[in-house]
Amino acid sequence: MTNNQLNEHGHLRHFLTIEGLKRPLLTEIMDRAEQFSSISHQQVKKVPLLRGKTIVNLFFENSTRTRTTFELAAKRLSADVMNLNISTSATSKGESLLDTLHNLEAMHSDMFVVRHSQSGAAEFIAQHVADHVSVINAGDGCHAHPTQAMLDMFTIRKHKQHFPDLCVAIIGDILHSRVARSQIQALATLGVGEIRVIGPQTLLPTDCNTLGVHVYHDMEAGLKGVDVIITLRLQLERMDNGLLPSAREYYQCYGLTDEKLSIAKPDAIVMHPGPINRGVEIASTVADGKQSVILEQVTHGIAVRMAVMSMALGSQAEVEAQL
Amino acid sequence: MTNNQLNEHGHLRHFLTIEGLKRPLLTEIMDRAEQFSSISHQQVKKVPLLRGKTIVNLFFENSTRTRTTFELAAKRLSADVMNLNISTSATSKGESLLDTLHNLEAMHSDMFVVRHSQSGAAEFIAQHVADHVSVINAGDGCHAHPTQAMLDMFTIRKHKQHFPDLCVAIIGDILHSRVARSQIQALATLGVGEIRVIGPQTLLPTDCNTLGVHVYHDMEAGLKGVDVIITLRLQLERMDNGLLPSAREYYQCYGLTDEKLSIAKPDAIVMHPGPINRGVEIASTVADGKQSVILEQVTHGIAVRMAVMSMALGSQAEVEAQL
Amino acid sequence: MTNNQLNEHGHLRHFLTIEGLKRPLLTEIMDRAEQFSSISHQQVKKVPLLRGKTIVNLFFENSTRTRTTFELAAKRLSADVMNLNISTSATSKGESLLDTLHNLEAMHSDMFVVRHSQSGAAEFIAQHVADHVSVINAGDGCHAHPTQAMLDMFTIRKHKQHFPDLCVAIIGDILHSRVARSQIQALATLGVGEIRVIGPQTLLPTDCNTLGVHVYHDMEAGLKGVDVIITLRLQLERMDNGLLPSAREYYQCYGLTDEKLSIAKPDAIVMHPGPINRGVEIASTVADGKQSVILEQVTHGIAVRMAVMSMALGSQAEVEAQL
Repeated sequence: MTNNQLNEHGHLRHFLTIEGLKRPLLTEIMDRAEQFSSISHQQVKKVPLLRGKTIVNLFFENSTRTRTTFELAAKRLSADVMNLNISTSATSKGESLLDTLHNLEAMHSDMFVVRHSQSGAAEFIAQHVADHVSVINAGDGCHAHPTQAMLDMFTIRKHKQHFPDLCVAIIGDILHSRVARSQIQALATLGVGEIRVIGPQTLLPTDCNTLGVHVYHDMEAGLKGVDVIITLRLQLERMDNGLLPSAREYYQCYGLTDEKLSIAKPDAIVMHPGPINRGVEIASTVADGKQSVILEQVTHGIAVRMAVMSMALGSQAEVEAQL
Repeated sequence: MTNNQLNEHGHLRHFLTIEGLKRPLLTEIMDRAEQFSSISHQQVKKVPLLRGKTIVNLFFENSTRTRTTFELAAKRLSADVMNLNISTSATSKGESLLDTLHNLEAMHSDMFVVRHSQSGAAEFIAQHVADHVSVINAGDGCHAHPTQAMLDMFTIRKHKQHFPDLCVAIIGDILHSRVARSQIQALATLGVGEIRVIGPQTLLPTDCNTLGVHVYHDMEAGLKGVDVIITLRLQLERMDNGLLPSAREYYQCYGLTDEKLSIAKPDAIVMHPGPINRGVEIASTVADGKQSVILEQVTHGIAVRMAVMSMALGSQAEVEAQL
Repeated sequence: MTNNQLNEHGHLRHFLTIEGLKRPLLTEIMDRAEQFSSISHQQVKKVPLLRGKTIVNLFFENSTRTRTTFELAAKRLSADVMNLNISTSATSKGESLLDTLHNLEAMHSDMFVVRHSQSGAAEFIAQHVADHVSVINAGDGCHAHPTQAMLDMFTIRKHKQHFPDLCVAIIGDILHSRVARSQIQALATLGVGEIRVIGPQTLLPTDCNTLGVHVYHDMEAGLKGVDVIITLRLQLERMDNGLLPSAREYYQCYGLTDEKLSIAKPDAIVMHPGPINRGVEIASTVADGKQSVILEQVTHGIAVRMAVMSMALGSQAEVEAQL
């Protein structure tokens, strides 16, 4: 699986998961994002890098927020963007997923940005696309959300620079979170000193030890000496499954309040992938406080997506140049 | 409230309401719209004025017609446009309105075009946006619809030139009409000689006298000597509230027929903000007749919106230039 | 009817139906599409031909696939595209269709791409639009789908060159198919040697003889010596009307299997307008087989739509040049 994200020159062709990618590539993504960050402050926030390219947002699961960031990133690279909400279109005429894909390829699309509720969907699609198409995973089930992980790494690097010196804690529903899975893989690949996960037994994976992370069920112990705190959105539907007692009780145990935040290092930063449930996984005073970098994450999300898109289509250009 | 539409140099930053704006600014909007009008007749109906700017249509209330005019205006200024139908997106995930706004700001959006069913929504948003964002009110509840008012003023000026000499009558549901409120403010600011409102007692505001307008309940008296007739769309749901007997009876009393039109000056123009209820507030023969400028209003709507958008983002450029 | 597709110089203004168009015009469309085909292989798949033009996709009937092809074609010509799903917009406010159209015209739209479930809708609209607007029929009821027919002709020409030498068979529900009607007219205009239709009595028109086509109810006889096989999508709702027994029985009689395909000439090509019902009108092995040109049709659809759009707006430019 891993290798098919790279072309024969070792350059990014698809971006499906952090798993299996090497540190230099993650660093390259962040370096490239750094360049795009400065564009956002120019009068004309646009570069003609992907002019004439066609990028299709294939959203099988509705997510206005994520689609918006990819659409903006694509437009700032001057690409043409098509938004397809697949659940309401071709498949309702009984066409198979692969037929829909092959049709879009035949229209000379260059990239599919895929969001799907099923784990593995983006990889399945990447395995079946034509040679001229790149696939970006914009979140698949509980599996991976690699652009979110990279914007988080980029944000950490902006504030903390040297990864090996850091202690990073991720709080919440690690078990069901594609964000957390991708973050842990990225943090590990970048050589972060210590990775901790904090949450109730029912929301932590059973293989935490093999992931190389330290497990805490208690915030006081888990936050001690931490440089970076990543809070996760609590999927409120978990409560229906009996995995959690109530949002209120969760907040008391694992909600990040000012008091709990004070346990971490004084210059610790607070992150959240959004959208926030205020008063559930995080207190409003913390989300809006001095140590919060939550909105910075959103800003960096555009630059990181521009980086990944331009790298993937750049490696496609290599292919074309050889034909 | 009023002042926060202008920046410290007195230039337009937000466009929320006509209230409190001075005559020179309204004239500047019309002069600027005049320039954009000519662009629409060129082979390439586009200028690169807002290239690289990101304009977000934030529609909390569905209105394809209004969204289309803003989208077209933005595209003809070469801006990138994102359409967000908020009712069906982020807020359904329980995110607060302000969190949604701050996220869009963090993506380096430059302008929010806001449509909302609640009066004051655009002002509320303008009070909370970041310094780099301009807000345009595309209609909020019964409160204001300033771009509609300005396109109406622009249309009147095209045909009648000198505002102080004019007598303008607005017919219909003044009480609930954001269009009428903004029109009356604009007409007064531009020094129109006489402003009349014509309608049944139940559909007129009680403070008409303080608004400086003359009240008529009878079309014959009200239309006498009038230069400009503005008909309003009758919200048919008013009938359910018992404010009106029936569409048919309304038409008999206040529908603009050829016969009633003949009471006005022979060169009077007939306006309507659209969409038209033919045979309710206006006869088809009048809507399609020689004195009707209804479709011209639509054309001018694009130019006026281009003017307001470019002015607001122009004053933002001033801010940036100082940083 | 026919003549109002052409302007006084005999150039394409609207594209509503193949009926009444002469062979040189169809050839011109294909020649122009040939030029645009090569653009799709360039690094920058875009030409500035329609920059500043506004093209409105007016879809009264939902069809993501067809809308996508027109939107892509328009964007690759650098036009601005507005997607209006009319069923859910203005008409829900009680505005008449013509008022909606006149409003869009007043916004200086240059082209309406119309999809409608009623036969004749595109022609009705073309009869009522302003002089500066071109109308393209993207499918109206059972009547016509001329861009689909032209992309099919273009695909045939790519593979078979000389139309008079060809025998073309269309299989399936000819009676209700706008695609088949337009195909037969195009094939006849291009002088195809023999046109056959194959299907059950209930799905063939009664005037087949006057159409100049040969009727077959049996695949074995109908496919003998054929150069081009066009399979049609079976509208599964036909079964509810009692016009067809079952999908399975239909497949046995008229589904294109490898076995039946072997009856045709060895170099026969297989076409389908999509989306495919695999195992109903065509076997998967045939749809994905060597003789299938189904995905090529999709690719050519972009080029042909670019050709038609640029020709129609080119002839508008002639009009403007004279003003």
